Amino acid sequence: MRFTSERRLDDGVLERDFTLGDVPGILWTPGAAAPHAPTPLILAGHNGGLHKRESRLVARARRSAAAYGYAVAAIDAPGHGDRPRPAGEEQVRADLRRAKEAGEPIEEILDALVVPLVERAVPEWRATVDALLSLPEIGGPVGYSGMTAIGIRLAVVEPRIVAAGFFAGGFVPRALRGQARQVTVPLLFLLQWDDEGNDRQQALDLFDTFGSKEKTLHANLGGHTGTPWFEVDDGNRFFDRHLR
Amino acid sequence: MRFTSERRLDDGVLERDFTLGDVPGILWTPGAAAPHAPTPLILAGHNGGLHKRESRLVARARRSAAAYGYAVAAIDAPGHGDRPRPAGEEQVRADLRRAKEAGEPIEEILDALVVPLVERAVPEWRATVDALLSLPEIGGPVGYSGMTAIGIRLAVVEPRIVAAGFFAGGFVPRALRGQARQVTVPLLFLLQWDDEGNDRQQALDLFDTFGSKEKTLHANLGGHTGTPWFEVDDGNRFFDRHLR
Repeated sequence: MRFTSERRLDDGVLERDFTLGDVPGILWTPGAAAPHAPTPLILAGHNGGLHKRESRLVARARRSAAAYGYAVAAIDAPGHGDRPRPAGEEQVRADLRRAKEAGEPIEEILDALVVPLVERAVPEWRATVDALLSLPEIGGPVGYSGMTAIGIRLAVVEPRIVAAGFFAGGFVPRALRGQARQVTVPLLFLLQWDDEGNDRQQALDLFDTFGSKEKTLHANLGGHTGTPWFEVDDGNRFFDRHLR
Repeated sequence: MRFTSERRLDDGVLERDFTLGDVPGILWTPGAAAPHAPTPLILAGHNGGLHKRESRLVARARRSAAAYGYAVAAIDAPGHGDRPRPAGEEQVRADLRRAKEAGEPIEEILDALVVPLVERAVPEWRATVDALLSLPEIGGPVGYSGMTAIGIRLAVVEPRIVAAGFFAGGFVPRALRGQARQVTVPLLFLLQWDDEGNDRQQALDLFDTFGSKEKTLHANLGGHTGTPWFEVDDGNRFFDRHLR
């Protein structure tokens, strides 16, 4: 892991760009000498289509660091942000546009986009956890917050993840929905009730399927990007219950 | 309104028994000189079958007063707690037991219990609000927290209710479900995912129906009485957003 730049932000948070192999990422750590040492780590697993510098992701990460004392890390998923698109993905995306316009089923095409993304992203997240936990200022434990598809697989294979917040507003391939019962860590599942790109019943079924003994659903009125800001604080308090 | 006894509890909260006509109630107010003056009021509308001194209700009320600075009031619903059963109710309850044992539909019988309860309870709550807001130590605004059936009707007819938390674990007569669209105050709807006495789909449909522009569903794994304690704090923070 190599830090390539750093900035002290006006909320006191230290923001550092890093690279780990060819994966670029950002680490936010609390400004003041942490009252919460050792500092737990939250992996900010944004949606596949978004950049690690997406403004809502950054605002949430800074809040978690500044007000709750967490270290927060984001990395660009394969083919997103600063990373080159995988070979063949342009073709799949063109197929997706065409199928949408024609009103044809798109689940198989989405599978062809998201399954490889998850397969590549999960080992990158695990390597990122290895590197971050070797830093003296980060002690763990580790929580994951973000995209459901990557989160399911990561929670199944990575025992250092002790709690997870999943955002229900993204496509989850059938193969990963089938693994939801293997997710057993405490879970906060966040659903936008009128998400235009998400099947509400499928999200409720997924919540029902997760194997976690402690799981909570938060649903709010509104569309995909309308999650109220108070859910950021609810999410941090969820992590406070499980990472402290 | 007549106060009949008072106690200073070990969390500093002042707990006072009162009667208003033939309605017995309890008022909890914050111990310390309130940092939140004027003190808002939360109506603790427990489930129809429970006493105002039911231990979980009391624990929640004391937490709202001690940690969040609210005045909280509970009254016994008609026919519950210290109040005599209405004439004929024993017969309806016997009908209910018989229908349950026989596996017959019970919705009409539950309607015969709950509709009159709501019709009597709502004016009593409104008179209680009148009396409590006339006390110098209570300033409003007013929130309601508790049983959904009474809550829907109260939120529809009582403009002083500015936010409501409903517990989905009780029977809601069809006539009241039909009024849910008229509920427009910010809403926190609390559902136990595996509530043995409650139809999950009907609860989700009810959440969908409420007319509130700002509404949030919190669902937790477990049965009717298994609501996790952290929901008490979530509920108080919901009121903080709307009563302060």
